Amino acid sequence: SFDAAQVSTDLSIDAFFLLYASTLIFFMQTGFAMVCAGCVRLKNVQNTLLKNILDACGVSYGFYSLGYAFAFGTTPGNTATTFIGNRNFFLVGVDDDSFWLFQFAFCATSGTIVAGALAERCQMVAYLAYSLFLSSFVYPVVVHAIWSNNGFLSARNINPLWGSGMIDFAGSCVVHITGGATALIASKLLGPRTGRFHDLHGNLLDSPKEMPGHSLALQCLGTLILWFGWYGFNCGSIITLTINDNYKVISHTAINITLSGAAGCIMTLISSSIAAERSTGETTYYLPYALNGCLSGLVAITAGCSIVDHWASIVIGLTSGALYLVCSKLLVKWRIDDAVDAIPVHLTNGIWGTIAVGLFAVPELLSNVYNSSTHAGWFYKWGMGSADATLLACQLIGILFVTGWVLCMMLPFFWLLHYFGYLRADALEEVIGLDVAYRGGMLESNDDQDEETKKKM
Amino acid sequence: SFDAAQVSTDLSIDAFFLLYASTLIFFMQTGFAMVCAGCVRLKNVQNTLLKNILDACGVSYGFYSLGYAFAFGTTPGNTATTFIGNRNFFLVGVDDDSFWLFQFAFCATSGTIVAGALAERCQMVAYLAYSLFLSSFVYPVVVHAIWSNNGFLSARNINPLWGSGMIDFAGSCVVHITGGATALIASKLLGPRTGRFHDLHGNLLDSPKEMPGHSLALQCLGTLILWFGWYGFNCGSIITLTINDNYKVISHTAINITLSGAAGCIMTLISSSIAAERSTGETTYYLPYALNGCLSGLVAITAGCSIVDHWASIVIGLTSGALYLVCSKLLVKWRIDDAVDAIPVHLTNGIWGTIAVGLFAVPELLSNVYNSSTHAGWFYKWGMGSADATLLACQLIGILFVTGWVLCMMLPFFWLLHYFGYLRADALEEVIGLDVAYRGGMLESNDDQDEETKKKM
Amino acid sequence: SFDAAQVSTDLSIDAFFLLYASTLIFFMQTGFAMVCAGCVRLKNVQNTLLKNILDACGVSYGFYSLGYAFAFGTTPGNTATTFIGNRNFFLVGVDDDSFWLFQFAFCATSGTIVAGALAERCQMVAYLAYSLFLSSFVYPVVVHAIWSNNGFLSARNINPLWGSGMIDFAGSCVVHITGGATALIASKLLGPRTGRFHDLHGNLLDSPKEMPGHSLALQCLGTLILWFGWYGFNCGSIITLTINDNYKVISHTAINITLSGAAGCIMTLISSSIAAERSTGETTYYLPYALNGCLSGLVAITAGCSIVDHWASIVIGLTSGALYLVCSKLLVKWRIDDAVDAIPVHLTNGIWGTIAVGLFAVPELLSNVYNSSTHAGWFYKWGMGSADATLLACQLIGILFVTGWVLCMMLPFFWLLHYFGYLRADALEEVIGLDVAYRGGMLESNDDQDEETKKKM
Repeated sequence: SFDAAQVSTDLSIDAFFLLYASTLIFFMQTGFAMVCAGCVRLKNVQNTLLKNILDACGVSYGFYSLGYAFAFGTTPGNTATTFIGNRNFFLVGVDDDSFWLFQFAFCATSGTIVAGALAERCQMVAYLAYSLFLSSFVYPVVVHAIWSNNGFLSARNINPLWGSGMIDFAGSCVVHITGGATALIASKLLGPRTGRFHDLHGNLLDSPKEMPGHSLALQCLGTLILWFGWYGFNCGSIITLTINDNYKVISHTAINITLSGAAGCIMTLISSSIAAERSTGETTYYLPYALNGCLSGLVAITAGCSIVDHWASIVIGLTSGALYLVCSKLLVKWRIDDAVDAIPVHLTNGIWGTIAVGLFAVPELLSNVYNSSTHAGWFYKWGMGSADATLLACQLIGILFVTGWVLCMMLPFFWLLHYFGYLRADALEEVIGLDVAYRGGMLESNDDQDEETKKKM
Repeated sequence: SFDAAQVSTDLSIDAFFLLYASTLIFFMQTGFAMVCAGCVRLKNVQNTLLKNILDACGVSYGFYSLGYAFAFGTTPGNTATTFIGNRNFFLVGVDDDSFWLFQFAFCATSGTIVAGALAERCQMVAYLAYSLFLSSFVYPVVVHAIWSNNGFLSARNINPLWGSGMIDFAGSCVVHITGGATALIASKLLGPRTGRFHDLHGNLLDSPKEMPGHSLALQCLGTLILWFGWYGFNCGSIITLTINDNYKVISHTAINITLSGAAGCIMTLISSSIAAERSTGETTYYLPYALNGCLSGLVAITAGCSIVDHWASIVIGLTSGALYLVCSKLLVKWRIDDAVDAIPVHLTNGIWGTIAVGLFAVPELLSNVYNSSTHAGWFYKWGMGSADATLLACQLIGILFVTGWVLCMMLPFFWLLHYFGYLRADALEEVIGLDVAYRGGMLESNDDQDEETKKKM
Repeated sequence: SFDAAQVSTDLSIDAFFLLYASTLIFFMQTGFAMVCAGCVRLKNVQNTLLKNILDACGVSYGFYSLGYAFAFGTTPGNTATTFIGNRNFFLVGVDDDSFWLFQFAFCATSGTIVAGALAERCQMVAYLAYSLFLSSFVYPVVVHAIWSNNGFLSARNINPLWGSGMIDFAGSCVVHITGGATALIASKLLGPRTGRFHDLHGNLLDSPKEMPGHSLALQCLGTLILWFGWYGFNCGSIITLTINDNYKVISHTAINITLSGAAGCIMTLISSSIAAERSTGETTYYLPYALNGCLSGLVAITAGCSIVDHWASIVIGLTSGALYLVCSKLLVKWRIDDAVDAIPVHLTNGIWGTIAVGLFAVPELLSNVYNSSTHAGWFYKWGMGSADATLLACQLIGILFVTGWVLCMMLPFFWLLHYFGYLRADALEEVIGLDVAYRGGMLESNDDQDEETKKKM
């Protein structure tokens, strides 16, 4: 019958759409790997890349075995608010493979955020342990709370928090705060790279030693790949394309991504350039800042990409660029060493993006996406003469919950790793580069080249 | 009802298809960035990449604020021929976000073409200014004339030029001539890189100094990414997938792209190799020529990809490779310095591609795509015993209009920049590399490595 | 009518889906190019990349002119079993352009597999000749036998072999064994790189000289791009998305790809690390092994991705990683030099993947995809108390046919090239690098930098 054919057609489109989005998100692994490779010194390229590829693999198994079950494994029809799911372990009984694939790709992203922050000084085993722990338990609990219909914070809960629930469309909070907060905790416990803030005798340096990455081209490549992947990340979060007017949502979302990313980039570039001019008198432009500013804008728009107006996405992006710069400087001041600035990009702007939803969510767009516009962004409510800040309050509760939960789980976890000597790489190994134990690494290859060059001279 | 469900399904597919195409086109930014990074010397990598990323951002805002409105902002139902649109500024009142997104991605491509040609000697501020001017005014006027239903050259005008109108399916003329002509004007006014044609005292060198890029791997990566993105660029130009037999058009287009790109590559590689053998006696192959030959074929097929036969796409590709080589040599002879050969790739083959439509457009395919086959390619008309060269004439008018328009706008613009000292980078800065003022650049990072290596010895 | 609209909608989705898959597969060319570039020494980057790009072009024309016709060019309605097709040369009379495009992308992949194995010592002309021969005749015959409805091994033959036919969903056998076996034959005849196993006087070295690639970052980039492209490669092989429950198949396939690739990576990394620890006492991790292990898992799952369970994909992946390591060591022992380990990745695991289908194919999934579940994987048949190993036997026949066919075609072909002096590069040229004859290569460019740096000092 026509009806059945129509349903089957729609199912095909929806599965195809999620496959498209999932593959783009999976491609973000490439982006993260290139950003990390570009940001570390040549002597650490191999181990950094290895961590990035292990990440994708480790997370696959953490999420396959336990993660998905904890996040979404509830009995169909069960509308109770639960802390955690309890079925669908090892993909058993999963009806919708496309949804699983999509959620897996998200989980992998969350896991890989932390890799860069720990680069150049962390042991492989610590990274593997953290990867599995995050993807099988810590992250799924956050997902369950915010995205499952049974989560206590979810806007799709039958009885949402304060009649509103928290709104995080594509994961500024779920993905980026979780990853970013873990990066902060781990960086703090791990300590800075040797020679970053102190000399070899442990005396504080007058100014921190810059440790620039070995290839801006790779960092730029990675950032642009991430931007490309972001369209899958955010547009795909509508999940079912063919219902309601969701086809309008994906285009609206894609435009907001573009405007916010560009705004973050421009803001960071101009601010850092002006700041440099004031202190040195010369006009200089910093590509790494521009790239991270761009990522900051993308992170910040992630929570609200489908439910804020285009002008708001520009405001969100501009603010995110400024926040990134300030937090990046603060981290250096506090002597927390982050090789790729993952913390100011993902944690700071994850928080900002989540709050921004509470300020700028448009009633009409909320109706489209969440079937309810009772509690919209505070600015709109204000404009209507109401003081209703329920949504903003929910967003803040969400941020508190996620940061608190990550802290309670990850602080003891990394502390134990540290205590038993599995966290920090050997001091000597760190100075000569973590790649030194490997054969076939870049250094050897370069030595080889050097020898050839020498012979020619 | 079934009917409504069907319509909603089709809208979903169309929006999804444009999202897919737009993201691929956006990914071409990555391709251009890698091509440029690979083609410049190591000392200029950072500033070249910065220009590429600024481009994406600058164009976003130029097109968001004014560009789209000038290009497509006409009242629905208005069939008058106009010079420029006058509504939808700042995305206000835009109904179809997917179309906006798609057009934005196109505009970004047009803007980035010029970046490579100016590399290694242009100021940042000139680039930013040009970016905004192009995306907010110059390019939109061209788009309006050729692609809007109200454009005086458009084949979709209710009363098209000479009953035919110009046909430029995916922008050989609109995108590539606009970008390429701007590159030519700017290169000419900017002058060659120091040391390229003259020694330090200004005496003409016996033969131009080669300034090879620092990484063929990056150039190759970029070119292949561009090829990948081209499928979105050209196939997406059908805009609405679900009407007529448009699903046939996208596959036909994709095959033509492949055949023409491959033909351009092979032609350039073989010709340059034979030429080298004749002059030096040794068989040598030039990867950069092969890569640019490939891009030439892609540029040339862009105007006619959906309306020429497969055999014609091969003829177009082979010709484009030869044209590229000849023009590349001519530019050197005329001492116009183009670091990435953007002018022979985009301008020359943009022109050739636009003309080729007037020669090879197939009546049946024209009916499919443009609902009219009265005025087909000259060869087909000839075969039917007619001398009707109306389409060819329209194509030539189009080329004249676009080159003329770009000249009238861009010549004074760059001349003013030049006059006020905003165009050319400082001479000393240029010799030591534009990256020298930046911290965290590649050179410094390499110096850093060297120091560490020295210490170890 | 509704009916017609429905049909047109489905055709649009199917064409779009194949375009999506084809572009992803085409992007794998970029992946192969980057893997090869990363795995060779700096002095050979240019010619290696040139071979990769020539590949895409050469294959286009081989497949366009003859290949597709031999593979699929049978009269509609003809159900006879044939050796080869005989119409649709030069795309004449092809109804379904999307299917052509998809098959072309597959052919290009098969052709490019061999490029890496021959790197650093093969002549350009040999490569071009092989490319054309493979894509126009050798590969199409394999495709016809296994994928055409008229093939004697095809499961879709009206009267399949032993009532079952061979099952190779996305080409472990068709693509990877064909490419891998060719690589083995060519490597053997070509001989190892100078200095790999013997010193300059021809005396056997005590241990083979490692010739590490110049950039792990590029190799990693390439591998991740290949993984990304694999989703198009395998999911796209369902061809028609909108019929049956094919939308379920694509998600199932994508999950299996992910699990198997990750399993291969983890297995290889852990095994090689344990082996190294036993022999040297130190824990070391090898990124190149991890990357190739990942590719091994992807190759192995390709034949059965849509018809094995998730747990089986993990078993297949883990086994593939171990097989890769063993065969890589064996090749070195047998002194067959393979610069990128293409043989253990593609040939070994192509064979393993094809066999695995005979073991693990699930009856229900077979019904979904092949409309018949009479002959399922041996383990399942065993579980049902049957000794029916028909499918396994068909798989083995398939492997024998393809390896035998490739041997009969490629051995004389490469022997002739060798005999007439077109295979191996000039000995001196090889030592100083095949790029030496080219201008604009990487080395020269670096020398250039050095000179400038020197002048500054």
